[in-house]
Amino acid sequence: MFVILLLVFGTLQIFGDAHKIKSPWHYECSAGLCEKAAISSNVSTPLSLEVCQMFCGEAGAIWPKPTGHLSLGNFVVHLDPEAIKISGLNSTSKVSTLLSRSVNLLKSNVQRLGGGVANNKNGKALWVHFSGSLVKDLSMPLDISENYTLEVRQLDDGTVNATIVAESYFGARHGLETLSQLIVFDDLRSQVQIARDVNIVDGPVYPYRGITLDTSRNFIDKAAILRTIRGMAMSKLNTFHWHITDSHSFPYESKSLPNMSHYGSYTPQKVYTSKDVKEIVDYGLLHGVRVVPELDAPAHVGEGWQWIDNALLCFKAQPWMNYCVEPPCGQLNVSNEKVYEILETIYKDLIHDFKPALFHMGGDEVSTKCWNSVESFKQWMATKGWNTTGDSGFIKAWEYFQTKAYDALTRANNGKTLPSILWTSGLTDENNIDYLDPNKYIIQIWTESSDKSIARLIKKKFKVIFSNYDAVYLDCGFGAWVTSGNNWCSPYKGWQLLYDNSPLNIIIKQGFSTADKQYILGGSAALWTEQADTSSLDGRLWPRAAAYAERLWAEPSSSWIHAEQRMLRHRQRLVQKGIQADQLEPEWCSQNQGACPL
Amino acid sequence: MFVILLLVFGTLQIFGDAHKIKSPWHYECSAGLCEKAAISSNVSTPLSLEVCQMFCGEAGAIWPKPTGHLSLGNFVVHLDPEAIKISGLNSTSKVSTLLSRSVNLLKSNVQRLGGGVANNKNGKALWVHFSGSLVKDLSMPLDISENYTLEVRQLDDGTVNATIVAESYFGARHGLETLSQLIVFDDLRSQVQIARDVNIVDGPVYPYRGITLDTSRNFIDKAAILRTIRGMAMSKLNTFHWHITDSHSFPYESKSLPNMSHYGSYTPQKVYTSKDVKEIVDYGLLHGVRVVPELDAPAHVGEGWQWIDNALLCFKAQPWMNYCVEPPCGQLNVSNEKVYEILETIYKDLIHDFKPALFHMGGDEVSTKCWNSVESFKQWMATKGWNTTGDSGFIKAWEYFQTKAYDALTRANNGKTLPSILWTSGLTDENNIDYLDPNKYIIQIWTESSDKSIARLIKKKFKVIFSNYDAVYLDCGFGAWVTSGNNWCSPYKGWQLLYDNSPLNIIIKQGFSTADKQYILGGSAALWTEQADTSSLDGRLWPRAAAYAERLWAEPSSSWIHAEQRMLRHRQRLVQKGIQADQLEPEWCSQNQGACPL
Repeated sequence: MFVILLLVFGTLQIFGDAHKIKSPWHYECSAGLCEKAAISSNVSTPLSLEVCQMFCGEAGAIWPKPTGHLSLGNFVVHLDPEAIKISGLNSTSKVSTLLSRSVNLLKSNVQRLGGGVANNKNGKALWVHFSGSLVKDLSMPLDISENYTLEVRQLDDGTVNATIVAESYFGARHGLETLSQLIVFDDLRSQVQIARDVNIVDGPVYPYRGITLDTSRNFIDKAAILRTIRGMAMSKLNTFHWHITDSHSFPYESKSLPNMSHYGSYTPQKVYTSKDVKEIVDYGLLHGVRVVPELDAPAHVGEGWQWIDNALLCFKAQPWMNYCVEPPCGQLNVSNEKVYEILETIYKDLIHDFKPALFHMGGDEVSTKCWNSVESFKQWMATKGWNTTGDSGFIKAWEYFQTKAYDALTRANNGKTLPSILWTSGLTDENNIDYLDPNKYIIQIWTESSDKSIARLIKKKFKVIFSNYDAVYLDCGFGAWVTSGNNWCSPYKGWQLLYDNSPLNIIIKQGFSTADKQYILGGSAALWTEQADTSSLDGRLWPRAAAYAERLWAEPSSSWIHAEQRMLRHRQRLVQKGIQADQLEPEWCSQNQGACPL
Repeated sequence: MFVILLLVFGTLQIFGDAHKIKSPWHYECSAGLCEKAAISSNVSTPLSLEVCQMFCGEAGAIWPKPTGHLSLGNFVVHLDPEAIKISGLNSTSKVSTLLSRSVNLLKSNVQRLGGGVANNKNGKALWVHFSGSLVKDLSMPLDISENYTLEVRQLDDGTVNATIVAESYFGARHGLETLSQLIVFDDLRSQVQIARDVNIVDGPVYPYRGITLDTSRNFIDKAAILRTIRGMAMSKLNTFHWHITDSHSFPYESKSLPNMSHYGSYTPQKVYTSKDVKEIVDYGLLHGVRVVPELDAPAHVGEGWQWIDNALLCFKAQPWMNYCVEPPCGQLNVSNEKVYEILETIYKDLIHDFKPALFHMGGDEVSTKCWNSVESFKQWMATKGWNTTGDSGFIKAWEYFQTKAYDALTRANNGKTLPSILWTSGLTDENNIDYLDPNKYIIQIWTESSDKSIARLIKKKFKVIFSNYDAVYLDCGFGAWVTSGNNWCSPYKGWQLLYDNSPLNIIIKQGFSTADKQYILGGSAALWTEQADTSSLDGRLWPRAAAYAERLWAEPSSSWIHAEQRMLRHRQRLVQKGIQADQLEPEWCSQNQGACPL
C-alpha cells in the first residue's frame, strides 16, 4: 500500500489566496497523522485538515479502504464544481442513464461542499470518463462484479480527467464514490480541491454488505429510508434488507390485500405504498443498493392479519412471555390453507414492487408453546400423525409451513425459484438442519459469534450472512422497555466492535480455513426498532454501519485503531451530506491525531 | 387527585364528521389506560388516541404532572387555532410583552398540530386571560415563584376562556405550557380539540431544574441550543447550565479577549458570539429558562489560553493519564497574576452577555500531579510555605486560586457577589470542605448517589444540585473513545433511572429527614459531549431529561411505571415540536396500553 507522508501544492493560485486565511492553525502530516500547528511565516503552504487528511496515513481519507493498488500522489488541483462533466456516454441505455444521474449527484454534492461558499474562480474542469464492459444486467445478483479502477490525471491545459473502468454499473458507481472522497473543501482557501495523481484498483471481499432495518416495531418514514440508502452508498454497502413487517404493525400496502395495512399500520399515514416502495427501490439501484424485502413468518406476525378468519394464533396473548419473546405475540395458523393463499398474494405484490434479486423469508423465533396452547391446532397435528408432546411434532408443523411458503413464493415469482434467506432458528438447530436445502436457502446468522450452529451451517455448505448480535446489533445498550434496567443485548456495540467483527476470523475460530470464505456472503448490521424510529435512525445506524462496511468490503488484517482517523473523517462526511451520524470522539482528537488513544 | 375514567363528547360537530374516519381503530379508556378497539356501529363517539389520553389515567397527558389540585373534566371543544387571543394585557411592560410573545408561540404551535391540515370550520375561539401579581423582576433568582393556577371554561356563546393566575411571568408561562398540553389534534376528525372544564393548581417542588450541556468537547450549534431550550420549556425545566468551555475548545467569543476563541475554537465558525449568547439568553427568558454560564477553572482549561504567556500548565501533556482525566490535559498556572486579570475580563464579558442570576465556577478534577510536575510552580509554592509532598500544599494552591477567582468574579460583577456554583471535587472532600463557605457556594453533586460527601455537604448546610452520574449523566453507555469497549460511566441511563432519581430519597437514605429538603435546590441532567454534537444532541437529551423534569417538578411518591404512558405521550409531543427525541418503546405499546410491561 502506497502511503503519502509529504505534501506539496502544485497550483499557484493556492499561494495567492493564503492571505485570506482566518484560522491561526494549519495541519501537518507526520507519521501518518495530521497534527495541528500554528501558521507561521515559515509555512509557505498551510494545509487545511481535510486536504492534509486526503493524503495522510494509510488509504488517506477513503472509506472503505481500497483492496487493490492505491496511489494518491501528493498534489491537489483547484476544482470548479460547476465544471464537472461526463464524457464518452453516447448510448441511451439504462446503464448510461444511471451513470449520468450519478455524475449529476456527484456534481451537486461537490457544489454543496463548504456550504456552497467556495471561490470557483480559476478552478479547473473535471471530466469523468467511463469504460469497461458495463454489463446491462441491473438486477444485482450476488455474483455481479463490483470492481473498478479509478485514475485521475491533470492534462496540459489544466483540465482534470477521471477515468473509471468497471464491468458493471455497480462497480462504476463505486469508482465515482471513491472519486467523491478525493474532492474536498479547503477551508483555509475557500476552494474545492481534487487529488490529481490517483491510481486505484478496488473491489469488495464479500458480495453481501448490508443493513437490516425493522420498520414494524416503529415506523421509519420514507425520507429516512432514502437517507439511509444514501449513507450506504457512501460506505459502499450494497444491500438494504428491509424487515418490513412484524407482529407490531404491517406498514406495507399490498395492492391486492389493502386490508393488511388498513388494519395493520399504526396510522393511515404510516404505510409504504407501492409508489413509495418503487421510489425506494429505484433510489437503491441508483445508489448501487439492492433492496431485499423480508416477510417474516410463521412467527413475528400479528397486526394486519386479524381481519382474516382463523389465520392468527396467540395474537396479543397474555402473559406474553408464555407465548413469544416480546409483546405482542402472534403466530400464523399454519394448518389453515387460507394462510398460504394470503402469503402467495402478498409475495406476488412484494415481487412486483421490489423486483428482488433475493427474498428474505424470516423464519425465526417460532414458539412451540403458542401452537401448543391451541386445542384445534393440536387436533390438526394429530391428523398429520405429529406428536404434540415435546418439540419434534411442532418442528414438523414448522417445516410443513416452510415448504408450502417456499412453494408459494416460487409460484408468486412465476415459477422461478428466488434465492431465499432465513434467520438462524430452531430450524437451523442440530436436530433439524437437514430439513433445509443449502441450494435453496441462505442463512442469516444472528447468534453470538461463538455459537456452534455457525460451524454446523458451514459444514452443511450453507452460504451465510453475519448479523451476530454480540457485535452488529445496533439496538443494544439502551434502557429496557418492558421493565427497568438495560435492554436484552446490552451493552452498546461500539464502532470498534463492528469494525473488528471479521466473518473470516469467526469461522477460522470455529476450525475452518481461509478457503472456506466461499461460504461467507458477507454481513448485515441490524437495527431492530423497538426503541428507535425516524427521529433516532441516523444516529443508531451511523457511523457504526460504516465501520462494518469497511470490514465487509476489505476484510482488513488490521484492527480498528488503524482506521480511527479515517472513521472520524468518514463520519464527518456523512454529517456533511445530511446524515445525523453520532459523533465518536471530541473533535479535538481529529485535530490532534494520535493524542487521544490510551 | 381527580382522575377521569369516562369520556363523553359534548360538541355536536364531532358526531357530524365521524363518517370521514379512515382508521378502523379508536381508543377506549379503561382503568386509566387507553386501549385500541375496532370502530363498530355501537361506537357513537370514537376517540382518537390523543383525545383519549388527554383525560385517561393519572394527570391525563400533562407532563410534568401538577402538584396541586387537578381536574380536567371530560369534555372537549372543537377549537379554531386561528382564533387564539390574549385578553386583559393593556400594559406595555416587559412582562406583558413576554406573555404576548408566549401566547403567539402557543398559537403558532397549535396551528401546526396535525401538520396544519386541521379543519377549523365551526371551531371555537380561545381567549387567554392573565392575572395575579406578575412581578416585574425577570432576573429569575432561585426564590422566584413559578406557581400558577389554570382554569378553562366554555362560555354560553361557545367561546373558550383560559384564565391563568401567577405571581411571576415564569409561573404564568408554565400555565400556558400546561394549557398547550390540553390542546390536541384529533386525527379521527381532523380537528383541534381543547379540554373544556379544567382546574389546575400547580407549582414546582425544587427551584433549580436543569440541563447541563458541554459545548467544548464538541460544538453544539445555536439552533440546537435554542431547540434544547424549547424542549426544556415544554418540560418545565428552568435552568440551562452551559458548560461553555473546557480544555478541548473555547468557543465563547469574549469581546475583550477575542484571542480566546481565535485560538481556542475548533474552527472560526464554531464560536458563540456575544450576539449569539444574547439571542440564547433572550430565548431562555421567553421560555422561562435561566441561562447559567460555567467557566470551569483551574482545571478543564487548555485550548484558547495558549496565547497567554505562562498561563497554562501541562497543556497537551503526554501520556495524558499521568496529568489529567482525559486528553487534552491543561491546568491554569495559579501562581501567575496575569491569570486572574484574564479571568476577571472573561467574567466581565460573560456577565455582560448572560446577565446571570447564578454563576458556575466549575472547580472540578484538579490534578495535583500536573502542578507537581512543574518545577517553577513548586518553587512558587515553596515561597508560600506550602508543602509539595503529598496533596495538602497543592490544595492550598487550589484554595488560593478559588479565593482570588471568586474575588475577580465579584469585581467583574461591579462589586456585588453572585451566587456561585462549584462541582463536588477535592475541595469538597472531608479534609477541605471547611475552606468553602456555604453562604457563597452552591454545590453541584456529580458523585454516585451513595457517596458520603453528600451527607457531609448537607451537614455543613450547603445548598446542593443533584447531577449524580449513576443516574443522570446522559453520555453514559456508548462505545469508549480512548480505547475499545464501553465508556467510563456505562451502562446507559434509561429514562426510568432518571425518573426515579429522587434527591429527597437520596438524602433520606443518607440519614436526613424530609425537613432537610430545604438544602436541595434541585438537579440537572448532564450531557458531556465527548461523543455527541449537534447531530445527536436531541436523542441524548430527550426524552430522558423530561423524565428528570417530572421528578424535579413534582417529587412524586410513585415510580416510573405509573408515568410510562404519559412519558411516551410527552416524547411524541417533543417530536411533534421538532425535537428528535429517542423513541422508548414500540408504538404498539402506546396503542395497547398496559400490554407491554413484564
